[in-house]
Amino acid sequence: MTDGTPTTMNGAESLVRTLVAGGVEVCFTNPGTSEMHFVAALDRVEGMRCVLCLFEGGATGAADGYGRMADKPASTLLHLGPGLSNGLANLHNARRARTPIVNIVGEHATYHREYDAPLTSDIEGLAAPVSAWLRTGMSAAEIGADGAAAIAAARTAPGQIATLILPANTAWDPGTGIAPVPAVPERALASDDAVAAAARALASGEPVLLHLGDRAVRGEGRVIADRIARKTGAHLMAMTSNARIDRGAGTVPIERLPYPIDQAIEALKGFRHIILIGATQPVGFFAYPGKPSLLAPEGSTTITLATPGEDQIDALERLAEAVAAPPAEPIAAAARPSLPTSGPLDQDTIGQVLGALIPDNAVICDESITTGRNFFALTRDAAPHTWLQLSGGAIGLGIPMATGAAVACPDRKVINLQADGSGLYTAQALWTQARERLDVVTLVWSNRSYAILRAELANVGALNPGPKAIGMLSLDDPAVDWVSLARGFGVDGRRVETLAAFIDAFQHALAKPGPYLIEVSL
Amino acid sequence: MTDGTPTTMNGAESLVRTLVAGGVEVCFTNPGTSEMHFVAALDRVEGMRCVLCLFEGGATGAADGYGRMADKPASTLLHLGPGLSNGLANLHNARRARTPIVNIVGEHATYHREYDAPLTSDIEGLAAPVSAWLRTGMSAAEIGADGAAAIAAARTAPGQIATLILPANTAWDPGTGIAPVPAVPERALASDDAVAAAARALASGEPVLLHLGDRAVRGEGRVIADRIARKTGAHLMAMTSNARIDRGAGTVPIERLPYPIDQAIEALKGFRHIILIGATQPVGFFAYPGKPSLLAPEGSTTITLATPGEDQIDALERLAEAVAAPPAEPIAAAARPSLPTSGPLDQDTIGQVLGALIPDNAVICDESITTGRNFFALTRDAAPHTWLQLSGGAIGLGIPMATGAAVACPDRKVINLQADGSGLYTAQALWTQARERLDVVTLVWSNRSYAILRAELANVGALNPGPKAIGMLSLDDPAVDWVSLARGFGVDGRRVETLAAFIDAFQHALAKPGPYLIEVSL
Repeated sequence: MTDGTPTTMNGAESLVRTLVAGGVEVCFTNPGTSEMHFVAALDRVEGMRCVLCLFEGGATGAADGYGRMADKPASTLLHLGPGLSNGLANLHNARRARTPIVNIVGEHATYHREYDAPLTSDIEGLAAPVSAWLRTGMSAAEIGADGAAAIAAARTAPGQIATLILPANTAWDPGTGIAPVPAVPERALASDDAVAAAARALASGEPVLLHLGDRAVRGEGRVIADRIARKTGAHLMAMTSNARIDRGAGTVPIERLPYPIDQAIEALKGFRHIILIGATQPVGFFAYPGKPSLLAPEGSTTITLATPGEDQIDALERLAEAVAAPPAEPIAAAARPSLPTSGPLDQDTIGQVLGALIPDNAVICDESITTGRNFFALTRDAAPHTWLQLSGGAIGLGIPMATGAAVACPDRKVINLQADGSGLYTAQALWTQARERLDVVTLVWSNRSYAILRAELANVGALNPGPKAIGMLSLDDPAVDWVSLARGFGVDGRRVETLAAFIDAFQHALAKPGPYLIEVSL
Repeated sequence: MTDGTPTTMNGAESLVRTLVAGGVEVCFTNPGTSEMHFVAALDRVEGMRCVLCLFEGGATGAADGYGRMADKPASTLLHLGPGLSNGLANLHNARRARTPIVNIVGEHATYHREYDAPLTSDIEGLAAPVSAWLRTGMSAAEIGADGAAAIAAARTAPGQIATLILPANTAWDPGTGIAPVPAVPERALASDDAVAAAARALASGEPVLLHLGDRAVRGEGRVIADRIARKTGAHLMAMTSNARIDRGAGTVPIERLPYPIDQAIEALKGFRHIILIGATQPVGFFAYPGKPSLLAPEGSTTITLATPGEDQIDALERLAEAVAAPPAEPIAAAARPSLPTSGPLDQDTIGQVLGALIPDNAVICDESITTGRNFFALTRDAAPHTWLQLSGGAIGLGIPMATGAAVACPDRKVINLQADGSGLYTAQALWTQARERLDVVTLVWSNRSYAILRAELANVGALNPGPKAIGMLSLDDPAVDWVSLARGFGVDGRRVETLAAFIDAFQHALAKPGPYLIEVSL
């Protein structure tokens, strides 16, 4: 508070102090001129770690990874409408993962907007599709309270994106200090009717699926669901994509609804009752000609035991009681998978290597897309770990999400399983991993194509594609050199083309603090 | 039309054929599942060049560069809301540059949207802020006509962004073939009152500024403006950022309104009348505490002779006639600047090298930010060339814009003057340059910082920044290795640290077809 900085606390400092007091300890940022007072305030406030990103998609994806692991919001700091725009795709993912995030988006001073300067745009319009809470600050006197309201909104179950637009003058005018965070409502409880309906389905003698999402799928929820399943014969299945599953040896195993639509329909075919617990109803990821949008079998019933916003653990406990489920039994830890000793370097052997080498307590950030279809099964008996997936289908999350997860969990190894086409969206986040000395191993599945789209061409009925269509799915001319890219961003790495070389490189990367990147040639 | 493809023309093919018939010959794309029928249709239609981009910001920025040089729209093909989101920042720039673009954004089938699949989002909400024309296709029967309307909207003066959202079933259901493009309205003429008011100001004997933008600044407009200036003593000045200026030896020289606010105010200080011809009124790029938003001096009058949407050439001709301006005189070509033979490698010597070596008819894509503040003046007498600037302030345009300009102008050398921090937003576009064998030389000004923000910290009154604030503006830990990055994307390059090495590398790059990248260490 010396050296020419304001002697009264300005709006920016009020906001930063409010964020810190409200438990927001990390800011993933790519600032610009309109955010300079916020940046300057960071120097005067203890307790906010600033993580610079080269691109806003890196900042928002990192905030997603952080929020999933920390179970509390990080903030972002984005530069006006274009900065927000660059972060929107990963905010879309975060919205689908129900990750708490406090977005701070800089804006022109309130009185300047009418002049339509080049960077002026409709920030509220851009932010609305991803934001559960959205407000433009009106004055520096209120901006602390605005920030406090944003924190409360972000922390409201099941986790939300709160976007506070920060006009420059609300940052530089005199503020009013730390504002208290309003009370965050508890998760609502599932209704007794929902519990009774689920219990009736489980008592029907007909095949029942417990479809788990949100908190119900993580770890604790699966234990209760497993008690119910053992008592009733119900089947457990996670959604196709899940924000976070704590899994591996000693945990309740769970499979996921397959992504390919024909396999998904097949997986659900036999069920007469589908009970949703933190999950949403199974729907096609896309529409396909002649195939249904709703994947539950005709004639089946769908029962919502607990929505993503409700207390799923409580609902599971009450359902377990209703069906008189036995107490939890320890899960016998199966033998740790062993390393494959020979064979090609392919999806199956890679999955086996992961199963054998995932270290205890690792965090897996999975944007494997096609290459990883079998990884989940092959790592079921790996050392206990946490698995994060791409929840919203907006590719380009993996590297940023791993970055944020590593910031949240400095004592855990983070392993990013990364499809190459997707990774090329936001590879800049590797630089942040180097800058922050984050312990991340990035495994890039280098198949040099948008492999998923080759199958999708057939799925939508576009058979026998010609050279132009195939060209639009191919990334082999030129081949991307991921080791060069990583080096460009300050991350060491190597390229492997054999199973033995992959094992050696992965063991090397696990043994030393990261970041490190391995380009796995497929 | 064999091999299992539909035997009737589907909606996608109707749309693609409509685009080609309407003069849209290039599609910058990063497609996904919902766009597969559009992609498949490209195989059945001649005349549409498909340019694959690794990231949608590359596609939209390339469409901007293409449209500025071709004076007609390219199309983009983007994957649902997230794909559009990734392209929004450069669409913001294109909107400010008034570049015609036909955006095609894939969407779930109309009947699938209600199920809120993971990729579902409010695409219209996201598109509205950048789109002058926006429509969601309702049926395959109408999608061709929708595309034709989009073309007409994009081509409407001064050039607009038209966004057509393409639900998957409007692509795969039977279409109705090529739809004719509606008539595009001519540019409106400036009013007689506006011409008279401008003429009165010029006759007042008081200092007058002719502030030029859009078509008035390109080349032909400057010739007429120069006639008026020679007759009346008026001063010519372009906007700070301009979509396109054709300049160099033999053209009417023009300076630009400076970016730094104090310099901009100083540059306008003496004028009593500011006549806008395709330009908008001078406003601060940002608001700054204690500084005005409107930069015109108090007491001055601002006269709009012709808006960006009006016929500025006609308006200038009528004004020239009103003031009895003399005919145009040839501009004496000054001596070509000579190469500096000694000195440090800095902004001034780089500018001199550019002035000496810019080849005849080159296209300069300028995202130099701070490093390039003097380049415009130092290249005034270079060989004739075209200069494109960042119009909307959303950084990350340079590499994509150069890519699109090179697609539009295969016979012209494209030179991208690229700030490093900005270039790191969308460096993936280098890959498209390699894939398409585009003749682009990228010169990266590697100062390893957001240098502009260091000045802006002071401008907004945040003096004496501390280590956190300075850290947020520094890109030196780790230092980005641009030559490695370029190699990773398949583009050759080298790093230079001396003036002699820069000259040698630039001459090397100019002598061979690109792409090529030179990292210029500052």
